[in-house]
Amino acid sequence: MAGGKRLSDVGEFGLIERIARLAERVQAPGGRVSLGIGDDAALLRPRPGQDLVVTTDALFEGVHFRFDQETPRTVGRRSLAASLSDLAAMGATPLGFTCALAAPPSFEVRVALALARGMLDLAGEFACPLVGGNVTRARQVSLTLTALGSVASSRALRRDGARPGERILVTGALGASGLERARGSVRRVPTPRLSAGAALSRSGWASACIDISDGLLADLGHLCRASGVGARVEAGLVPRPAGFTAACRRAGQDPDALALGAGEDYELLFTVGPRAPGARVLARRLGVQVSEIGRVERRRGLRLAGGVACWASAPGWRHF
Amino acid sequence: MAGGKRLSDVGEFGLIERIARLAERVQAPGGRVSLGIGDDAALLRPRPGQDLVVTTDALFEGVHFRFDQETPRTVGRRSLAASLSDLAAMGATPLGFTCALAAPPSFEVRVALALARGMLDLAGEFACPLVGGNVTRARQVSLTLTALGSVASSRALRRDGARPGERILVTGALGASGLERARGSVRRVPTPRLSAGAALSRSGWASACIDISDGLLADLGHLCRASGVGARVEAGLVPRPAGFTAACRRAGQDPDALALGAGEDYELLFTVGPRAPGARVLARRLGVQVSEIGRVERRRGLRLAGGVACWASAPGWRHF
Repeated sequence: MAGGKRLSDVGEFGLIERIARLAERVQAPGGRVSLGIGDDAALLRPRPGQDLVVTTDALFEGVHFRFDQETPRTVGRRSLAASLSDLAAMGATPLGFTCALAAPPSFEVRVALALARGMLDLAGEFACPLVGGNVTRARQVSLTLTALGSVASSRALRRDGARPGERILVTGALGASGLERARGSVRRVPTPRLSAGAALSRSGWASACIDISDGLLADLGHLCRASGVGARVEAGLVPRPAGFTAACRRAGQDPDALALGAGEDYELLFTVGPRAPGARVLARRLGVQVSEIGRVERRRGLRLAGGVACWASAPGWRHF
Repeated sequence: MAGGKRLSDVGEFGLIERIARLAERVQAPGGRVSLGIGDDAALLRPRPGQDLVVTTDALFEGVHFRFDQETPRTVGRRSLAASLSDLAAMGATPLGFTCALAAPPSFEVRVALALARGMLDLAGEFACPLVGGNVTRARQVSLTLTALGSVASSRALRRDGARPGERILVTGALGASGLERARGSVRRVPTPRLSAGAALSRSGWASACIDISDGLLADLGHLCRASGVGARVEAGLVPRPAGFTAACRRAGQDPDALALGAGEDYELLFTVGPRAPGARVLARRLGVQVSEIGRVERRRGLRLAGGVACWASAPGWRHF
């Protein structure tokens, strides 16, 4: 780490200039960003008939990431993945994002740039430009991202539309991120389900949707509370990656606890009414694995069939 | 401070619910927020022909504010004032804002709510609803705000349009915020110049505009660099509040240093070409005091006439 430039060497504007150069790589299609980094604010021009979607997330060192568990580039990628996953859960298409970075004066410029590169790697994959931000001094390193997206008016996937009797489905497989974290080394950042979310929005089939950032049961709890309903989940139906149970055993971890309780898988959890097709057809239409895992019920609270009893209260991630 | 509820008592969602209740006070005109706090993201519906404006700012305890120098309510108000001032400097009308709050588990709920109230006080004055955000644990208290606004397409006030020979003007009077801070007690939060900025945008007179957040000379430096020009400022023409020089003397402060160098006055600094009227007519049209303080010059750098020599390099506020 010795010898690298520090923020105190290049100053706030020096860092912003460097990040702006990196950000030039990522341009919005059709010139939707009419003014980006370098002014007081950024200008975006959403199309008529579209809703603008905005979501803000903060990641702090020692709370949401540790530099001894993942590289700065992975931290950066993961921070934008979390925000884009929120857009995906709304059925939105990304327009751009802002990032506020805070760090001590001794923080190395190359680490800051690696954080930016990680974000911009993913940003490039989804044509989601960095359109502004902020850099400031702080005792603890943190990234606060605000992502903006658009969705056809009244087509946004909300949390509050689930009705009793509806099926509960989830994209992809759950538990891999929790297992990596339990092992103390995070290398893989799940890709946000933006195209699946957009397809779900267009389909009109979903009554409610949320992304799995806090853990399946915690996020299902959020969805159920917003909708004023309860749910029953079959633990055995919750999809896991290939070889997951064996890998958990080797790591001394409980596979149910990780698949149902651990967060940051960034899969989509959604409910559908009787008009919607089954999981197989949904998977084809959304372009991603889809599994049916339970039912919405009138009675509040979560019931877990076949799982570990300790999850009955759906604790999830608590910040305080 | 003893006996008050702490974040560890109510948890993340308990705090968000409380802030959401406070936020209900502030609604956007015409129902532009189709979905606000409580979902993955907020939805805004800008009008056709309008550009969306987004700006992000972070304030950290010990860096941007100290609870022994100002009340939490003042900190909150000031944090949104800074963001709305950025919108004003673009000529934008506010649409809404998000806020990411970070604090230690021991942070008192009433202090967090006072921060929110301070923001929402000002938000209410400008019909700028809190549409989302984030609460997380951190060692240091911080607020990161993203404000969104709209401006008629191609009418945004940018930094990069100043041309040699143009006049440099400023709204209001400068130095009061710097004097308060030098005295160690901040009570007064300047009101962002949103209506003046919007009027300036409609007028088409301004070639460039920036808000004074870092200090007159520092921000003029930003504007000049973005425009590829220099400037000459008459220190004696820089407007100060009534009784400012005497108040500075009593406090042992240099009035020039505060009026030209101190930040957070949130006035607008702008340049106009020969077609624009004089300061008196501009003042009437913008509904605010306007003073002419200098000229844009071809030669890069800032020249200060009648002021203290030490400002020749326009230092302003450095974060690192």
